[in-house]
Amino acid sequence: MDDVPGSVGTSAGFSLRLGQTIFSSASLLFMSLGVEFYGYTAFCYLVTIMGLVIPWSFTLALVDGYSVLVKCPIRQQGILLIIVVGDWILSTLTLAAACSTASVVDILLHSHGTYCPPKFCTRYQISAAMAFLSWFLSLASALFNLWLLPSL
Amino acid sequence: MDDVPGSVGTSAGFSLRLGQTIFSSASLLFMSLGVEFYGYTAFCYLVTIMGLVIPWSFTLALVDGYSVLVKCPIRQQGILLIIVVGDWILSTLTLAAACSTASVVDILLHSHGTYCPPKFCTRYQISAAMAFLSWFLSLASALFNLWLLPSL
Repeated sequence: MDDVPGSVGTSAGFSLRLGQTIFSSASLLFMSLGVEFYGYTAFCYLVTIMGLVIPWSFTLALVDGYSVLVKCPIRQQGILLIIVVGDWILSTLTLAAACSTASVVDILLHSHGTYCPPKFCTRYQISAAMAFLSWFLSLASALFNLWLLPSL
Repeated sequence: MDDVPGSVGTSAGFSLRLGQTIFSSASLLFMSLGVEFYGYTAFCYLVTIMGLVIPWSFTLALVDGYSVLVKCPIRQQGILLIIVVGDWILSTLTLAAACSTASVVDILLHSHGTYCPPKFCTRYQISAAMAFLSWFLSLASALFNLWLLPSL
């Protein structure tokens, strides 16, 4: 069986999980630092989804790190299937949250400029960008694990 | 080789494609009937994506209909791979467009009610709902075809 780089239990997979954790934490922090985030549904949604993505990615980062250290990657088909399905669901939800946030920020910036103090708007923009990066890494993880699945 | 219901060249697959075409056309029409759609980036994005999804789904509906009539489904791995990749990309883009539209409508409805005449807002809401339905059917097509892919 080939070892797909980026899948569960490889050092590339560990880096992907670490990146997801960092980007989603950054997205959550930048959004929460703006005190008005609960005024918009899309921002609340982003905070909720990031609250789901952070523990998921962090746990899998720990698993990957452990697997790399003991050189014994997970190869049970059932566990891998759960990871792939979870990754796909969370990456879809992250994409939805990132798009919603980006379009709300776009509205706030351009159409009704007076509603968005510049300090907060920059934070919202950075938060949306971090959410997109987190989605991208999450999609990469999901694809690599999906690729590994039929070979088990 | 098993025949996965819902994949390319089956009558269920034809129904899925027909549903995608109908829902994305409805989404495009409801959005275009509102004369102010070009004022918001998210709405322009939705119109662009629906303009891509409609010909894609319509072409594949024709292919499926033809395959069902002549009872000779497509089973070339290369063609199926192109269809699966195209489906995944378009379903991701449709989801992004639907989420952006929904969050902009939410903003227009609740936060700044005066900016959205009721007649237009209902149209925008229906358009977003149709885009979500189109995404759902598109995801179903992508999953069924992906399921069929390794067995070829």
